[in-house]
Amino acid sequence: MKLTILGCYAATPRTITNPTSQVLEIKNHMFLIDCGEGTQVQLRKNKLKFSKINHIFISHLHGDHFYGLIGLLSTFMLLNRQTDLHVYGPKGIKDIILLQLRYSNSFTPYKLYFHELRSKESEVVFEDKKVIVKTIPLKHRIYTNGFLFAEKKGDRKLNPKAIEFYEIEKCYYPKIKSGGDIVLSDGTLIPNDKITFDPIQPKSYAFCSDTVYDEKIIPIINECDMLYHESTFLESEVDLAERTMHSTAKQAAMIAAKSRVKQLILGHYSTRYDSILSFKNEAEIIFPNVLLADDGCSFEF
Amino acid sequence: MKLTILGCYAATPRTITNPTSQVLEIKNHMFLIDCGEGTQVQLRKNKLKFSKINHIFISHLHGDHFYGLIGLLSTFMLLNRQTDLHVYGPKGIKDIILLQLRYSNSFTPYKLYFHELRSKESEVVFEDKKVIVKTIPLKHRIYTNGFLFAEKKGDRKLNPKAIEFYEIEKCYYPKIKSGGDIVLSDGTLIPNDKITFDPIQPKSYAFCSDTVYDEKIIPIINECDMLYHESTFLESEVDLAERTMHSTAKQAAMIAAKSRVKQLILGHYSTRYDSILSFKNEAEIIFPNVLLADDGCSFEF
Repeated sequence: MKLTILGCYAATPRTITNPTSQVLEIKNHMFLIDCGEGTQVQLRKNKLKFSKINHIFISHLHGDHFYGLIGLLSTFMLLNRQTDLHVYGPKGIKDIILLQLRYSNSFTPYKLYFHELRSKESEVVFEDKKVIVKTIPLKHRIYTNGFLFAEKKGDRKLNPKAIEFYEIEKCYYPKIKSGGDIVLSDGTLIPNDKITFDPIQPKSYAFCSDTVYDEKIIPIINECDMLYHESTFLESEVDLAERTMHSTAKQAAMIAAKSRVKQLILGHYSTRYDSILSFKNEAEIIFPNVLLADDGCSFEF
Repeated sequence: MKLTILGCYAATPRTITNPTSQVLEIKNHMFLIDCGEGTQVQLRKNKLKFSKINHIFISHLHGDHFYGLIGLLSTFMLLNRQTDLHVYGPKGIKDIILLQLRYSNSFTPYKLYFHELRSKESEVVFEDKKVIVKTIPLKHRIYTNGFLFAEKKGDRKLNPKAIEFYEIEKCYYPKIKSGGDIVLSDGTLIPNDKITFDPIQPKSYAFCSDTVYDEKIIPIINECDMLYHESTFLESEVDLAERTMHSTAKQAAMIAAKSRVKQLILGHYSTRYDSILSFKNEAEIIFPNVLLADDGCSFEF
């Protein structure tokens, strides 16, 4: 998995910072997560081939998380994109996009599917053979979801030496990979773990922005490999965080610790602070593995 | 008058070019003309104090001319703007903005007035003591207006020597400035032109984007000081220009020549061309005073 941060600052785009948007590369997918104003330019700057984006996940309908969507969809139109495009987001996203296309008398040459979300419980929004995406219901001023992106457990790996030793034919490989035992021609049963290795441990990434401190998300993001949790404020502004339904760096770290995730990425910083290093310092008191998101940086895990 | 080009390229924003937006400073007003995606960042880059913008003119509802508007209005909200804001644009602009504010559960702390345009004839959309703004109906794929920004003729200037010579009292100055004659205490009539100079000649600026070649605009923009006329294409793509209802550089120059304007600014270039110099070369064959718009440049006149 590779996560590229296109923008990770709160509120308004500025000359040096961008509102929320991320690209997650996972099992041949390029998922776009949120799409603040200027996202298409950030995609270009980061040399991400955005024709590969087929699924866009929008957390909520505050502008700094979706004002760039209509522009990106229009650019796909100008580029004469043909591939289906899926947008997952709160109820309303379809209205907003279609109204603008209607007034500009535009029709996308590609099929545009909206998957509007209303549930307050976690639900599966995307699934294929290798990946599953679930919502993480968040508590914010308006209806908001984070998203949990999880690789599925892959096939067991063949042990080439054992396969050769028992002279197992190729036609049995799929059965063995999916965990089946083998009976040899003389009737001997070879249990699966004698001829295979464990598959690579599947990875998971949880995106949680924007949200107040909320322990209800812990069972959903539990033990994930990488957690992006918003930290709009420092603990010195904890009252403001509560009032605006955002989190502090300390609170993000508490969620990371209680969820026993492997690593925490902080982001969605208010632009009131001179340096984002204070966010890391504050979080590290609670949780050891803290990374700082910044526009244009990427993380592989 | 000072015109700053924030963006002057067609279609999609890129790392090095921006979609249409301009700021016109005229008689203490800072008018924003069109507002493509990224306009608020361009305003910051060009160090324009955007709290001074009270009037925004939108030519048409193609994305490259207004996708930045909702972001700018939201930023005004976050900055707790209190001053009234007026948006002039095609019917639909109000729907589009209010729908997005509604879904984000946002309310502007400032009064937001929409002046929706439907007329196919030129009409006055703004007027105060010193400035008048009229629409320039353009022919494009959807309902589109250019805008003519004209200074009003100012007061006549007092001739200090003559005023002193005739010993005219201050209380008569307003009457004299507005063109009135004076009768001295001995009954002598002093005609206005003996005690005043002509006022400075008022200037005008015509913004015409997007449009096919259309001579109907000539009477409206006639003899204006500065004309911005779109030139999406070069004459080699004249068929494409007609099909997409855009203009070539040659056509823009023909409009400038027939309207006997003083200067022509070209812009709204398609990004298919390597250099914009070819636009100037093509236009100068028809019309001598050609300037090239480019993002971040400004013109004083």
